[in-house]
Amino acid sequence: MRLVTISDIRAAAELVGPAVLRTPLLPCAWADPDRPLWLKPENLQPVGAFKIRGAYHALAKLPADVRALGVVAYSSGNHAQAVALAAKLFGVPAAIVVPDNTPQVKIDATRSHGAEVHVVPMTERESRARYLAHQRGSTLIPPFDHVDVIAGQGTIGLEIAEDLPSVETVLVPVSGGGLISGVAVAIKSLCPDARVIGVEPALAADAADSLRAGRRSASWPPAMRARTIADGLRAEPSELTFAHMRELVDGIVTVSEDEIRAAVTLLARQSRLVVEPSGAVVVAAYLNRRDELPLGKTVAVISGGNLDPALLAELLAV
Amino acid sequence: MRLVTISDIRAAAELVGPAVLRTPLLPCAWADPDRPLWLKPENLQPVGAFKIRGAYHALAKLPADVRALGVVAYSSGNHAQAVALAAKLFGVPAAIVVPDNTPQVKIDATRSHGAEVHVVPMTERESRARYLAHQRGSTLIPPFDHVDVIAGQGTIGLEIAEDLPSVETVLVPVSGGGLISGVAVAIKSLCPDARVIGVEPALAADAADSLRAGRRSASWPPAMRARTIADGLRAEPSELTFAHMRELVDGIVTVSEDEIRAAVTLLARQSRLVVEPSGAVVVAAYLNRRDELPLGKTVAVISGGNLDPALLAELLAV
Repeated sequence: MRLVTISDIRAAAELVGPAVLRTPLLPCAWADPDRPLWLKPENLQPVGAFKIRGAYHALAKLPADVRALGVVAYSSGNHAQAVALAAKLFGVPAAIVVPDNTPQVKIDATRSHGAEVHVVPMTERESRARYLAHQRGSTLIPPFDHVDVIAGQGTIGLEIAEDLPSVETVLVPVSGGGLISGVAVAIKSLCPDARVIGVEPALAADAADSLRAGRRSASWPPAMRARTIADGLRAEPSELTFAHMRELVDGIVTVSEDEIRAAVTLLARQSRLVVEPSGAVVVAAYLNRRDELPLGKTVAVISGGNLDPALLAELLAV
Repeated sequence: MRLVTISDIRAAAELVGPAVLRTPLLPCAWADPDRPLWLKPENLQPVGAFKIRGAYHALAKLPADVRALGVVAYSSGNHAQAVALAAKLFGVPAAIVVPDNTPQVKIDATRSHGAEVHVVPMTERESRARYLAHQRGSTLIPPFDHVDVIAGQGTIGLEIAEDLPSVETVLVPVSGGGLISGVAVAIKSLCPDARVIGVEPALAADAADSLRAGRRSASWPPAMRARTIADGLRAEPSELTFAHMRELVDGIVTVSEDEIRAAVTLLARQSRLVVEPSGAVVVAAYLNRRDELPLGKTVAVISGGNLDPALLAELLAV
């Protein structure tokens, strides 16, 4: 199995420029003095999430005649918006299949980019997407299980290494593992002494279990993972992303639902950022897992900011 | 009267680096195609507002022996936090005088930077600050009426001109006028064809009236200006800032309280930013004053993000 390389990520960085914001590292005044913290605010990307990096890169790598036949994606939300926007930027059609528990705000945003949206039961989303791709001759853009997607997400790690070469710990949310795989390739290549640590909700800790066991755990069925409020972290790693994680990731810590909610609130109050629960898990870990995390300069990758405004209102009103 | 020059601003940019985040321009997917919009998110500065630029620059320009005697400021909030943080970074004492209608969130933040906070009635804040400065031999750092403060705020305009040299319109909130003065010097020097347009709440439209009349209006007493929800926009220009505005600003538009509230909500929902009402007025103008604003590439300076979380919750819950 070929893993993504730093050369792949450097090439991706050249291609994604027109669609991707080079997010700054935001220093946190509220951090512990012995563990200074910077946020990498991917919620500020045009689609509100890092997913535009991998999606745009995957489309950019398609031959033009193949790309012209359109693309298809299945996604719990942010990947859907990202593929829809990337397709719009390339002027090609997109069909997006989303599970029926997707927040309405994400469905609306996907439609706003001109994509055709198909809402189906969670268990049918992959089969429906494959059917649509076959029927139309379109290309399926997977949310994480593809080297071009992983290389695109890895541009985040490249930017962190460029902006803070002395970084000591990078915290990354883990779902399907595309984000942490790409970030880990870049960080381990450019800052070999830095640790890359994943964060999962305790209610969807399949990757933590798998990494501990050295092989992909089968004991986290979708219904179990669906319990967490972090709706972007309900997928599980593929063979490809797990191979990257086993090789490059130093560990995975887990956080509770209350810790995730408190982190969303803190980020709005203290860092003036609207962050979805899936993006806030890294700050939940920073605040509540001191014993499991090394001291030193820490970067937390804030993966996205698409949450229901009513949920944010509820959290802020407490 | 000496106006600030682009050389002053370039020199300021060299000095403020250690304290100031170089904020990116955020493209807005929700903008009109014929008026693409970028946000300059100064709410992401460490104190949550652009004020750190002017305050840190003013302290940096003091002789070290004078600075060591400490600084004093009076402010409706964000300037207070900025002077407090700048003093902490230089390791000198700060005393901050705030009016008794200042949101608690801003008072707490000022104290958290180690400053001594004096809460007084609105009408006494300047006299109390002058008394404290005299008593201690400290230097008063005014919120806007000083060339070093204006030059520091002008670094925002320098960054806009560097990042988007083809900018056609820059929208800036107006209160005491320090921000728009500095931004206008930079923009008119580097992008002479671009327009710089101020935005005020209709309930505190003293600068709009003054600019129209060609001299500072006396018909906006403090109690009248205090009606707006935009608590950072209740000051009025000084002779110094008004001289910059008369020379360099193309116009001022006004927005209603409802338009301001809706802009705060939109920025949280669509741009994932927590923005205070004073910072959201520029987006309110972009959305509601199409007829008064030229077409073309527009940058809106989002001045700050320190608002009461309960107010944001209330706006998001609608």
